[in-house]
Amino acid sequence: MLHPDRLFPPDPTERAVARRLFRLVESLPIVSPHGHTDPAWFARNEPFPDPANLLIVPDHYIFRMLYSQGLPLESLGVRPLDGSPFETDPREIWRRFAAHYYLFRGTPTRIWTDWVLHSVFDISERLNEESADRIYDRMEEHLAREDFRPRALFERFNIETLATTESPLDDLSHHEAIRRSGWPGRVITAYRPDPVVDPEFEDFAGNVARLGALTGRDTQTWRGYLAAHRERRAYFKSFGATSTDHGHPTARTADLSQGEAEALFRKIMSGDFSAEDAELFRAQMLTEMARMSLDDGLVMQIHPGSFRNHSKRLFARFGRDKGADIPMRTGYVRELKPLLDAFGHEPALTIIVFTLDESTYSRELAPLAGVYPALRLGPAWWFFDSPEGMRRFREQTAETAGFYNTVGFNDDTRAFLSIPARHDVARRMDCAFLARLVADRRLDEDEAAEVAVDLAYNLVKKAYRL
Amino acid sequence: MLHPDRLFPPDPTERAVARRLFRLVESLPIVSPHGHTDPAWFARNEPFPDPANLLIVPDHYIFRMLYSQGLPLESLGVRPLDGSPFETDPREIWRRFAAHYYLFRGTPTRIWTDWVLHSVFDISERLNEESADRIYDRMEEHLAREDFRPRALFERFNIETLATTESPLDDLSHHEAIRRSGWPGRVITAYRPDPVVDPEFEDFAGNVARLGALTGRDTQTWRGYLAAHRERRAYFKSFGATSTDHGHPTARTADLSQGEAEALFRKIMSGDFSAEDAELFRAQMLTEMARMSLDDGLVMQIHPGSFRNHSKRLFARFGRDKGADIPMRTGYVRELKPLLDAFGHEPALTIIVFTLDESTYSRELAPLAGVYPALRLGPAWWFFDSPEGMRRFREQTAETAGFYNTVGFNDDTRAFLSIPARHDVARRMDCAFLARLVADRRLDEDEAAEVAVDLAYNLVKKAYRL
Amino acid sequence: MLHPDRLFPPDPTERAVARRLFRLVESLPIVSPHGHTDPAWFARNEPFPDPANLLIVPDHYIFRMLYSQGLPLESLGVRPLDGSPFETDPREIWRRFAAHYYLFRGTPTRIWTDWVLHSVFDISERLNEESADRIYDRMEEHLAREDFRPRALFERFNIETLATTESPLDDLSHHEAIRRSGWPGRVITAYRPDPVVDPEFEDFAGNVARLGALTGRDTQTWRGYLAAHRERRAYFKSFGATSTDHGHPTARTADLSQGEAEALFRKIMSGDFSAEDAELFRAQMLTEMARMSLDDGLVMQIHPGSFRNHSKRLFARFGRDKGADIPMRTGYVRELKPLLDAFGHEPALTIIVFTLDESTYSRELAPLAGVYPALRLGPAWWFFDSPEGMRRFREQTAETAGFYNTVGFNDDTRAFLSIPARHDVARRMDCAFLARLVADRRLDEDEAAEVAVDLAYNLVKKAYRL
Repeated sequence: MLHPDRLFPPDPTERAVARRLFRLVESLPIVSPHGHTDPAWFARNEPFPDPANLLIVPDHYIFRMLYSQGLPLESLGVRPLDGSPFETDPREIWRRFAAHYYLFRGTPTRIWTDWVLHSVFDISERLNEESADRIYDRMEEHLAREDFRPRALFERFNIETLATTESPLDDLSHHEAIRRSGWPGRVITAYRPDPVVDPEFEDFAGNVARLGALTGRDTQTWRGYLAAHRERRAYFKSFGATSTDHGHPTARTADLSQGEAEALFRKIMSGDFSAEDAELFRAQMLTEMARMSLDDGLVMQIHPGSFRNHSKRLFARFGRDKGADIPMRTGYVRELKPLLDAFGHEPALTIIVFTLDESTYSRELAPLAGVYPALRLGPAWWFFDSPEGMRRFREQTAETAGFYNTVGFNDDTRAFLSIPARHDVARRMDCAFLARLVADRRLDEDEAAEVAVDLAYNLVKKAYRL
Repeated sequence: MLHPDRLFPPDPTERAVARRLFRLVESLPIVSPHGHTDPAWFARNEPFPDPANLLIVPDHYIFRMLYSQGLPLESLGVRPLDGSPFETDPREIWRRFAAHYYLFRGTPTRIWTDWVLHSVFDISERLNEESADRIYDRMEEHLAREDFRPRALFERFNIETLATTESPLDDLSHHEAIRRSGWPGRVITAYRPDPVVDPEFEDFAGNVARLGALTGRDTQTWRGYLAAHRERRAYFKSFGATSTDHGHPTARTADLSQGEAEALFRKIMSGDFSAEDAELFRAQMLTEMARMSLDDGLVMQIHPGSFRNHSKRLFARFGRDKGADIPMRTGYVRELKPLLDAFGHEPALTIIVFTLDESTYSRELAPLAGVYPALRLGPAWWFFDSPEGMRRFREQTAETAGFYNTVGFNDDTRAFLSIPARHDVARRMDCAFLARLVADRRLDEDEAAEVAVDLAYNLVKKAYRL
Repeated sequence: MLHPDRLFPPDPTERAVARRLFRLVESLPIVSPHGHTDPAWFARNEPFPDPANLLIVPDHYIFRMLYSQGLPLESLGVRPLDGSPFETDPREIWRRFAAHYYLFRGTPTRIWTDWVLHSVFDISERLNEESADRIYDRMEEHLAREDFRPRALFERFNIETLATTESPLDDLSHHEAIRRSGWPGRVITAYRPDPVVDPEFEDFAGNVARLGALTGRDTQTWRGYLAAHRERRAYFKSFGATSTDHGHPTARTADLSQGEAEALFRKIMSGDFSAEDAELFRAQMLTEMARMSLDDGLVMQIHPGSFRNHSKRLFARFGRDKGADIPMRTGYVRELKPLLDAFGHEPALTIIVFTLDESTYSRELAPLAGVYPALRLGPAWWFFDSPEGMRRFREQTAETAGFYNTVGFNDDTRAFLSIPARHDVARRMDCAFLARLVADRRLDEDEAAEVAVDLAYNLVKKAYRL
């Protein structure tokens, strides 16, 4: 089911090079510097749930595709907010997925799922309506075993570091529990302040008040608010955090004077602000976060450009994060300028920028990362976390930004079981890209070998200070 | 002249797979759900005109390229509106085309024309200045034969269904004549209401009045206007229509209350409206059309993003559709939201969206089609109806929307003789794309075979309800 | 170090075709119609400076990459404006470059530099920290020789024509000296009027005054200002100029009445104008320049879309052109319309348009060039002057604009030694692209051979009237 040459170029010359390069990186430990796994798994180390609730119900890549072809989300186990009925039999959910598995042909979900079935559950037949029950039984059987618990899989997956993502309002109790447990797996957190930085976030005012309560700072004042951030960042650092993450609608930044910023903060806190005020506040906060990063060394990640919850109906019925986030055209040249003018020249600062707008790879992002010392390019993200997406990323960035202004791979996932599959795809696609450069003599193979190892392992550790 | 492996990847492994896949789809009937052939051809079944007036004078792909290189349109038989002289000798026109045929190297026109010469007219030499007359003679000879009349070619081309496109003001007399003739060829119409929906269309007010006259409805009122649309749609359905088509400048939609819509309609009908009013009216009408589609089952097509008649001079001298339509940057995420919020969740509705802005394939269109049940992606269109265009379409949409949110191929042409050539290119390029997925082990060959047949035949029938 | 098959496709069938095509163009003379070499080199024919001051200090491709990875520009020999210290030992600069040469893996700089080391300096070892000194010594030795002087290299490089770029305020004394010297190398100028056309250029008012002084025209009046342009254009023509060049921020054009233009000019000259006035003036001047081109036959080049001097800090410390120019999203469809409506139909006019926004290749530029007789597409430019950039250019333009609406290659460089390397890359990539069309049977090889020669030699001479 998993061919050893999968994703390698078919041309025999290129393929042979790709194989040799891949051999060097295949078994390197996994470093996962940004993602959304649940730290409770590793804190509690309880068995994972049934196959459907493990793989389908929480995976928006999967249920969005099934929904797009007419299956109600309720039939896939997604719970309506209003208490309406929904499918609760995991076997039924699994069968629906299996019967429609052909829809995923050509998608990364197909690649990841095949890998999970084969490499985690040792299944060698193809998933379809006919095999659904057999495969379900087999998975259930495995999931009950000790060696399928979260920590055992973490070790089996050869994960060196795994970062989760938490709000400043999170008490990090799961991370504390992991630490207290004595288990040596390195699960670290990352600081994602959107709920207390974005004035348009649900219950922003309440969140800022809670931030005050947590830190004992007066977050109704600009100084107190900033101090509270500094404090929570330090707390996150004490649980291993080496980075922050910012999921803003745009890449806009601002560099107001502290007087202007304070006035804007007061306006925001009054609750009487415009959409433009909110945007400007988010913009200013990116610069404030960079200023703090210069002090505490946390690496900044900016993930802009998603129109969240695009479907009014899905949002009303099921809430956030139901697969209806859609990329938007995103600008970087003017948007990042205030931040870059302030701190872009600082080699001690690292700002990793991502995009959902591939037209910016070669036009904006590679040229910016190819000049500003503080700037690095995050890998192909979300809808582009796929073989073709990764290929386009390298083709459109390497010539201007090189390889060394990029930061290795991010799996950015909550689907823990698929993490090795995602790194496997990234490593294969990078080896395939390098093999092409070797085959058409743009690079010697010994250099390509160095780059392959850097892309799979060294760059991520360096960029994220791990 | 036509190599059996044309457009297949050169790598022997991929090529072998592509060949095997193509063998499965090569002889499938042609389903052409959207295009601009003239129903009069099949109603009257008269011989086609001479080679120049058949292939060059009406083909904007051809005369725009020759014009771009300095040949006056008059010299190619295009008639100036002011009665100025133009070339009327078809042999002279043909010779000019032949002498400049090298300009089409690397373009789809070259591929289509070679196919027509070879497969329709059994010509095996290359077209150039020297061969022009011999080829012209041969074509003229063939065109005089019974088996080169429209219906004979329709049958020889193995066309199962061919849709034409008509205005609501068309009386469909040619379709009626086809039906009355007893000829079993399935030529159906499609409802293209731009002339009575776009306030900026030439003589919009007159068109709306004519719509009233045709239906006996009072199209000066919002209710009467909508009722007239419903009636014409039903009439079009009775002549086989399964779809509507909307060629708006943008993809903007709106979902006004009926009160607001009525007020807007009154403003438009008063003739005293702004460009923004016109845009809003078109936007609202897409939503109205979707509402009607939910009732009568017609599939909606949206073809946005062309700046029509870009050249003031060409438009003044020769009128519309003279090859000077230029794609514009086109947004979908915000633009389609009102329509999608209203009806995007309805699996009973099908909205097929096209684009002339390839930067939206992966950023906007595939993510939207990959979540909304009502949305499907039309194939690579117009300037992208070409090998590289088709390849980019699959590379940029398959990973997010899969294959099953796409709808097979549209030839979208008035060039009847080239229809099989266009479907041949599409089938070859899809097989080539699938062969790559098989060769690098993203798909098994038996699955690729299923997908190939779906892309060539099943998906179009399902999407267009044929 | 330089493999004879470099940049050719690895597939043996394609590679064999690419080799045969390349053999036809490999030794054709270099025609370089647009670039930034210094005419003083050829006027004086003095030895080039040391390796660092020849290859690193003036090359923004090189120092921007090193800077992006944390090396101060001062350490690379770039002189701060305020007189702060900077590295003046060329050997130290060279060593820093060599130690970081791995950063250029996958970039065109790597390809060009390897070519220069190998083909100009006959060096066969790879550049790195260890080999730095040996290579430096070898280069120094060569640079002292007679046959490494500018004119000797010009001849050795087989350059048929080399265009430099000068401001209207330049007295062309170097070109005059070249002419007087009797040396037969064809070094011509080109008219780049930005300093006297762009109201936001440093010291615009002074520049316009100087233009008046130079020509004896009253450049404070619209008529006198235009007459001065006409005069300088004629002067440039007398030194071989066949083209003008316009580096505007956008592609906007305007076609004001002469009354409106005159009023705008007065406003601009008053010094009291808005950014929009400046933009409109630049827009109008493109149309004025086209009008002059219709009279004097100079070919227009438009190079829009660069955000110049993006980094406030680099600009303040080091001045212009320090690698911090970043591409911006650029529109052409509406922007070029006024100019094209005025003169786009004139086959006697040639306007060559470039872009830094690749998303416009297939959406805007190829469709425009594929219809307007006056319009031609410049090759992949600046950040896209690279193998992947060139490949994308052909893939996205050939199907709509064909090959014959393009104009061959521009090296657009000040790095004289790399000119043959750049043309070598362009010729190889074009042959590789053509080889693909031959291999998948879109083109016969004899036709591809013709196209290869046209792309390498004939088209540039025709387009630039050389």
